[in-house]
Amino acid sequence: MNPLPDEYEALLREPNAAVIGTVTPSGEPNTVATWYLWDEGRLIVNMDGSRKRLAWMRENPHVSLTVLMEDWSKHISLRGRVTQLVGGEQGLDDIDRIARHYTGRPYPLRDRERVSAYIEVSAWHAWGF
Amino acid sequence: MNPLPDEYEALLREPNAAVIGTVTPSGEPNTVATWYLWDEGRLIVNMDGSRKRLAWMRENPHVSLTVLMEDWSKHISLRGRVTQLVGGEQGLDDIDRIARHYTGRPYPLRDRERVSAYIEVSAWHAWGF
Repeated sequence: MNPLPDEYEALLREPNAAVIGTVTPSGEPNTVATWYLWDEGRLIVNMDGSRKRLAWMRENPHVSLTVLMEDWSKHISLRGRVTQLVGGEQGLDDIDRIARHYTGRPYPLRDRERVSAYIEVSAWHAWGF
Repeated sequence: MNPLPDEYEALLREPNAAVIGTVTPSGEPNTVATWYLWDEGRLIVNMDGSRKRLAWMRENPHVSLTVLMEDWSKHISLRGRVTQLVGGEQGLDDIDRIARHYTGRPYPLRDRERVSAYIEVSAWHAWGF
């Protein structure tokens, strides 16, 4: 893919609003708001272990993430593939890291499984800049 | 589907940020920020006539729209099906109506084709309320 300009990478590092798209086994799109982390070129999102989209990602690893800037006429969409789904301690550590990024505090719950999806980005598209 | 509570319908009538998800012919999700209009139970989105997702919607009419409230920890996701794609004068009238809703002004351009997708909603999901 075309390298992401530094300006956009800097924006992606902010705790922006974002919406992730996945595809269900019947071929329908599903979208939901999500926290994400731009982790040096890959994306991390983290879900409660009971989320249906975890199974959908296992079946179809393609995802799309649209990141909205504070003025949401500016947005960056990233397409890619889930390369790893990780639970256990790592999943809990990741949600803490992501919660600190968004709220300044660790994630309040540690009694439920949390699963991270590590996403390799293959395409991006910026709008409104 | 479960009827949408009046409270959520009222929120959907506001000019909120939104992201629409479609599925490409290769089965990958695509997401992009969009204006939308909640038009008495159906959704309207409007695109430049050259947008690839128009062709994708013709092939796979399933769409998903996540609407973010100003505090985006509150969001409503709607799934549904494109029942009609309409261009010509109606497409231009619709983008005017949508632009007025979001900006208070008609859409500035009338020299490009604009196509509306009318979306019948079959499921919804609210989060953070």
